[in-house]
Amino acid sequence: MSSNQASPAPRRVAVVGATGAVGREMVSVLHARNFPVSEIALFASERSAGKVQDGPYGPLTLKAFDAEVVKGYDVVLLAVSGDFAKEHAKNLASAGALVIDNSSAFRYDADIPLIVPEINAAAFHEAFQAGSRLIANPNCTTAIAVVALGPLHKAFGLRRVIVSTYQATSGAGAEGMAELEEQTRNQLDGKPVTNSVFRHPIPFNLIPQIDAFQDNGYTKEEMKVTWETRKILDLPDLALSCTAVRIPTYRAHSEAITIETLQPVTPDAARAVLADAAGVKVVDDPANGAYPMPLNAAGQFDVEVGRIRSNLVFGDHGLDLFVCGDQLLKGAALNAVQIAELAL
Amino acid sequence: MSSNQASPAPRRVAVVGATGAVGREMVSVLHARNFPVSEIALFASERSAGKVQDGPYGPLTLKAFDAEVVKGYDVVLLAVSGDFAKEHAKNLASAGALVIDNSSAFRYDADIPLIVPEINAAAFHEAFQAGSRLIANPNCTTAIAVVALGPLHKAFGLRRVIVSTYQATSGAGAEGMAELEEQTRNQLDGKPVTNSVFRHPIPFNLIPQIDAFQDNGYTKEEMKVTWETRKILDLPDLALSCTAVRIPTYRAHSEAITIETLQPVTPDAARAVLADAAGVKVVDDPANGAYPMPLNAAGQFDVEVGRIRSNLVFGDHGLDLFVCGDQLLKGAALNAVQIAELAL
Repeated sequence: MSSNQASPAPRRVAVVGATGAVGREMVSVLHARNFPVSEIALFASERSAGKVQDGPYGPLTLKAFDAEVVKGYDVVLLAVSGDFAKEHAKNLASAGALVIDNSSAFRYDADIPLIVPEINAAAFHEAFQAGSRLIANPNCTTAIAVVALGPLHKAFGLRRVIVSTYQATSGAGAEGMAELEEQTRNQLDGKPVTNSVFRHPIPFNLIPQIDAFQDNGYTKEEMKVTWETRKILDLPDLALSCTAVRIPTYRAHSEAITIETLQPVTPDAARAVLADAAGVKVVDDPANGAYPMPLNAAGQFDVEVGRIRSNLVFGDHGLDLFVCGDQLLKGAALNAVQIAELAL
Repeated sequence: MSSNQASPAPRRVAVVGATGAVGREMVSVLHARNFPVSEIALFASERSAGKVQDGPYGPLTLKAFDAEVVKGYDVVLLAVSGDFAKEHAKNLASAGALVIDNSSAFRYDADIPLIVPEINAAAFHEAFQAGSRLIANPNCTTAIAVVALGPLHKAFGLRRVIVSTYQATSGAGAEGMAELEEQTRNQLDGKPVTNSVFRHPIPFNLIPQIDAFQDNGYTKEEMKVTWETRKILDLPDLALSCTAVRIPTYRAHSEAITIETLQPVTPDAARAVLADAAGVKVVDDPANGAYPMPLNAAGQFDVEVGRIRSNLVFGDHGLDLFVCGDQLLKGAALNAVQIAELAL
């Protein structure tokens, strides 16, 4: 039987910042999800222009970014710095392109939607129908957390959230992952260990600082989790505290999350809610050693959720859980492509 | 000027389990702290007996454990399994030796003191004067946490504690550290990565399981932190929840700790309390990138405490902090030797 739904018209898609770790994943995810593409163009710096980058669409020649050219595309995925986004994103969107920005430049603007499709697609549709064409893609740690927190909030209500993160080096891009590999090798070989991407050596170490410190003693990364979770869940006063820690892993972020709920909650009830939640894979069979781990979550679209248990601090209104998701996928590229899919 | 205090009489000291990571550190710590030793003897399994082990007291020949011989020593430091401790510790103590056991065998017995000298030395002295000679050394994660939590409790009162750990491979002994090193090298060299000490491969991964799962969904390691913190702080009903996670580091455990206090607390007041606390080194200058890290805490006696900030969840009764301490030292050998020092 043929579908009653007409196939969506193919789109002309531009990926800007296509040579970076997130840009490359955006191209892969578009292909993996069969996004209807009539043309795909990869834009990068002048330095990279003319080079050929291989990917699932075959070898593509990188083009130097040119706002006049890019604004002609239907969908523009930005994997660029906040400054670059601030300079160009609004102009591109004004020209009619659907612009999805992975930087933090616009996430906190009241009139710009911040979207995790599994959680607040409605906010996208409302804004899109009202003519908005610039959408912010959330911080990686936030996106991974809210696919679990959103359904739990809907079912039980969130009162307090405490997050401790175990973040991968991919959060600092391909250079971060390369520094982990190279410097780990140096340490094992007894050679001097240096650091340039990270503030301190990362091999066999951890660094409890991601992004700059704010006046309140939290890092910007930690406050992003607070600010963005509030916006995505539409809970402007949610009490949420985060400690963000870089650990020597490659590309999957893990998070230990303690919540206090408004309604009583049991592990079984939470598991049932999460089993039905889009974007979540419940991995919670401790007797058999099954729980979320970077080893398994890396390269996967779904966020793994496990270690679900009644909390010893908030009694029958408390839950502890552990989540793990691919920082480059749900934390960045996948979520951006999912937003583009909402407009199909 | 000469001291008015007489020097304590030198003791005959036995280290049982002397070939393991903790046993070796016990010998090093005794020497580093100038523990008054008239004789030191290293006991191990039959398999190791007769071998020579080098250390700060020079080369020493390992002896096969013999309860009749060991009970003649003044101080017996046990770095052995819980089963071995259950079989021998009480007999050795009955013979008059001060027995300090690093296993979990006796930690939860109401009549056996569980001691972190900076926090509850009084409990040791009371029991020792009443004739107790068997003392339990706490779980590593607990010992490291309570040197910070104890002074904060004294000053502000603890109501709730939420702990997420970043635990080193030394928690699984020398074999754990060796597996981390060997398997990391294998992964970098493109060779197969295996695991035997840990339940899953540890290189560039994390494992949110330490010790066996309990009926309540927590691991035994996590419950040890709850049970032992309650006992050491003499707060039998303290609400404390822990998530214990193994990460690819060698020998320093880190912990992200969120507390709710009974009295209002500020970061400055907490910093002042911790600056005066024995066994604590406040490392909290984020502008200059100074915060606790395994890179610096490994090999140190003090527990580093930093990232001290007002908490976004418990308002002016809340504090977040990050601690890092050497698992083999404050988490095991150092604390055991400090207990022995209490009896001098």
